[in-house]
Amino acid sequence: MKELELGRAFMLIEPGPVVMISTRGQDGAANVFTLTWITVLDWSPRFALCTGPWNYSWEALVKTKECVVNIATADMLDTALKVGTCSGRNIDKFAKFSLEALPASLVSAPLLGGCMAAVECRVADHVARHNLFILEGIAAWHDPSHKDKRLLHAIGDGTFTADGEVFHRRTEMGDKLPPGV
Amino acid sequence: MKELELGRAFMLIEPGPVVMISTRGQDGAANVFTLTWITVLDWSPRFALCTGPWNYSWEALVKTKECVVNIATADMLDTALKVGTCSGRNIDKFAKFSLEALPASLVSAPLLGGCMAAVECRVADHVARHNLFILEGIAAWHDPSHKDKRLLHAIGDGTFTADGEVFHRRTEMGDKLPPGV
Repeated sequence: MKELELGRAFMLIEPGPVVMISTRGQDGAANVFTLTWITVLDWSPRFALCTGPWNYSWEALVKTKECVVNIATADMLDTALKVGTCSGRNIDKFAKFSLEALPASLVSAPLLGGCMAAVECRVADHVARHNLFILEGIAAWHDPSHKDKRLLHAIGDGTFTADGEVFHRRTEMGDKLPPGV
Repeated sequence: MKELELGRAFMLIEPGPVVMISTRGQDGAANVFTLTWITVLDWSPRFALCTGPWNYSWEALVKTKECVVNIATADMLDTALKVGTCSGRNIDKFAKFSLEALPASLVSAPLLGGCMAAVECRVADHVARHNLFILEGIAAWHDPSHKDKRLLHAIGDGTFTADGEVFHRRTEMGDKLPPGV
């Protein structure tokens, strides 16, 4: 994984992809869950992630205030599904699914091996009444050689789509683009 | 537009599409802006939308506590760009771009004609410190005959993608799907 300029990390979440959130609990155990309920809040980058006490990783987010947002691509769909349909409460997902936990640079939560990109995050705030964690991206990584770069999008009924046709509209966007992208 | 069961409306936002948010200010003027910073919060449905005082529509959201989330499809890209790169502060976007304002059922903000689907929303809460409006969907509409059903996703650098390959994973999702979808 190569370092990705932090000012470009919002571009990993802006398209609304399926992501896999990795944590490391106070017991030292790594866990990962699949999520689509996340949005960019600004370009710095900051994100709002929605999850609550029903999710085993919630406690790690609350207590360690750290996580990594790993970006799933179409070649990772089966992994995202396996990770997303069982609980770390009674399964070591990294062991069971032979996932690779790579060391992150600034957080104890691991980067998920095999992903196209990842953002190390600190929990900047917790808006508990709406189950929202406000994440601040503090380091970002990407694998420029990752072959399948198509992001995955969940419809919510068990259907997923991958990125298809690409449209270039840089000129039309004018001054609406942030500096440096 | 035909009524869409409210329990299925989250499926319009879950994939992370470009949306167009329409409002009607206290002066009676309709406005619309383009946004990707929105996420589902639950299946009821509730959404978190990020925008702040820099956006002309912010005042209408704060004061009227209503809006419509209109779903953009690939055939609407040019409209989404035009709507997203000027301000309602000095332009009547509906007039300038010959947009159709259709009456909604429960809010004064209009549905945007030509869209594949729309969700009428009330602002349930405003988390001002994070520029988040918590929206409650109260009615939803869709046009089953809309030809181009490919959602649009913004990368953030002026590039957009449309939905491509579709994967059916209903069986694998098991009990992770909400009832009725």
